[in-house]
Amino acid sequence: MWATSPACTELETHVLDWLVEMLGLPRQFDSHGRGGGVIQDTASSATLCALLAARERATGWRSNAQGCDRRLVAYVSSQTHSSIEKAVRIAGLGSEQLRRLDVDESFAMRPEVLERQLAADRAAGLQPCFVCATIGTTASNAIDPLPAIGRLCAREDVWLHVDAAMSGSAALCPEFRFIHDGLEHADSYCFNPHKWMFTNFDCDCFYVADRDALIRTLSILPEYLRNRASESGRVFDYRDWHVPMGRRFRALKLWFVIRWYGVAGLQHHIREHVRLAQEFATWVEADDRFELAVPPPLNLVCFRHRGGDRANQELLEALNASGALYLTHARLHDRLTLRLCVGQTQTEARHVREAWERIQRLARPV
Amino acid sequence: MWATSPACTELETHVLDWLVEMLGLPRQFDSHGRGGGVIQDTASSATLCALLAARERATGWRSNAQGCDRRLVAYVSSQTHSSIEKAVRIAGLGSEQLRRLDVDESFAMRPEVLERQLAADRAAGLQPCFVCATIGTTASNAIDPLPAIGRLCAREDVWLHVDAAMSGSAALCPEFRFIHDGLEHADSYCFNPHKWMFTNFDCDCFYVADRDALIRTLSILPEYLRNRASESGRVFDYRDWHVPMGRRFRALKLWFVIRWYGVAGLQHHIREHVRLAQEFATWVEADDRFELAVPPPLNLVCFRHRGGDRANQELLEALNASGALYLTHARLHDRLTLRLCVGQTQTEARHVREAWERIQRLARPV
Repeated sequence: MWATSPACTELETHVLDWLVEMLGLPRQFDSHGRGGGVIQDTASSATLCALLAARERATGWRSNAQGCDRRLVAYVSSQTHSSIEKAVRIAGLGSEQLRRLDVDESFAMRPEVLERQLAADRAAGLQPCFVCATIGTTASNAIDPLPAIGRLCAREDVWLHVDAAMSGSAALCPEFRFIHDGLEHADSYCFNPHKWMFTNFDCDCFYVADRDALIRTLSILPEYLRNRASESGRVFDYRDWHVPMGRRFRALKLWFVIRWYGVAGLQHHIREHVRLAQEFATWVEADDRFELAVPPPLNLVCFRHRGGDRANQELLEALNASGALYLTHARLHDRLTLRLCVGQTQTEARHVREAWERIQRLARPV
Repeated sequence: MWATSPACTELETHVLDWLVEMLGLPRQFDSHGRGGGVIQDTASSATLCALLAARERATGWRSNAQGCDRRLVAYVSSQTHSSIEKAVRIAGLGSEQLRRLDVDESFAMRPEVLERQLAADRAAGLQPCFVCATIGTTASNAIDPLPAIGRLCAREDVWLHVDAAMSGSAALCPEFRFIHDGLEHADSYCFNPHKWMFTNFDCDCFYVADRDALIRTLSILPEYLRNRASESGRVFDYRDWHVPMGRRFRALKLWFVIRWYGVAGLQHHIREHVRLAQEFATWVEADDRFELAVPPPLNLVCFRHRGGDRANQELLEALNASGALYLTHARLHDRLTLRLCVGQTQTEARHVREAWERIQRLARPV
């Protein structure tokens, strides 16, 4: 709580407000109005908290007291991170009440599909409470269309959470802020400086537009936690902004990352990573053994060998066994796809070039 | 997951197995059989995971799929930490389904009260699923009677979680292992080396007797997390043992604490802390302005000035404002009670003596 270490809380609030400015996030998320930010361990935990606040707001804070009733429904796309399903289970909604909506050809959520599903569920006597849109999906870095989704959620009074775990950092650069178009409709948002902002794990920045909704959901006040500062109503007790009661002083490392690089330095590295990934994509396109699975929007390139799943699996294993680089995989259109991501602190042009040379060397002819 | 950093997982399993031996915990909690341990951030998070596994075991893993149905009931004593109520809300049971049972004169859970409540709830068509017993309650360090509670939970097929957040460390010393009598009946157990084992926050050690129950509750396997090591069934993916997917390498700091002090060194400090607290209690008893609220079982002394709540509140504020010591408070039998805890790395006899001298100096006559 605030009284345990005022500096820990105050610095965290400041650093998270700075990031609202640095990323050009909508002002509903800073602490000067009704919103505010808090550091969580991971996006999984942040999403769980968003879902819980959504659950409570939808039921007038009755689920906390009476328990879930199997009528609440949550919405994601088929490409949304699996942590949302985990959260839906944890929060007692049940994964049968999670709708995994079909996506468009770029793997983004389709607002008209969401709209139809919301209507169908309401018609069935169910209660839509939560939509999670993603800025940069795990498998392919797809960007869900926030403006249409956001207007729909506002009209339907459904909590909109936006998960920008890796890609959010791109908004440090004005030219990439298009990824957050429509974010002004969101009730909550998170991104992870530990993913693409050079900050040691763990550090997820979680923002809410209405902090009272979150606090009312997670606050419990036994006698041994009562204190004058909390009762003044003028301080944040971050204990009530997440699952654990105790917490570390994670704002320090985030502050020092910002001090060390400066905003211009952070922008430089983000730009360079996007440039390197885009350059890598042109090399993939120029080699007729390979194809891009999708045009890369930022720093994640999804590509595959044209020789089929087995060729890609063998290539993946040979590359990772080299110890010189590490690729991950996904299935896109039910085909094994390789993923190269440029985002680490020490990654330079030569690493990306060497990665491509190694891929070319180990790839068999089609 | 294991494949991300095998050393991180393997060392954690080893260190948590060592602690089973070091604390003389029942062998159902080590990883050689069906159990195992994992590091979580705090006891709040560990308890939530225990409750979720209990919820799923009780419903044949149907709550995860279908959602909660308001029939599941959880049991604690009136002295149990507030994080359990938070967990009951988060997990969708609803705090109305949390029974806060009356305690005995030493603030410990009364097994016969638990037995009656279990029967009453079953008679009402409800489904008991979770009991949380505490070894060392927050307010007064009370020790719930595990042997009777454990036999009851086994007979009733209700998940028993044991929260020994601070006091568990006492079991490093054989003479204090009585606190864990009956723990062989428990399904899960946690204690916090960051509380009383000289380890930097955060570090909660969480054990389950049936790891499959926990993993089945929290596991989700999307394509991008599939890998050969996981599919062999021969490694732990700790991602499935708690809420977050990502995790830090916390076993390192715990290992180094054990290396630095050695078992004998840890025992020495635990013994010294208990001795100092007990000595402090004799000073309290010898000053007729003060009284003990309860006989201190270990290292937490609950005492009060005989002059009433206001005298205690003023004394508490004056002492904490001095900056020389920090007392916390609780209400016991509805009277404000001061709590002095001896457990920090650098605390020596002179600090406890100086604390008492300051308390005596600032205390008014009755």
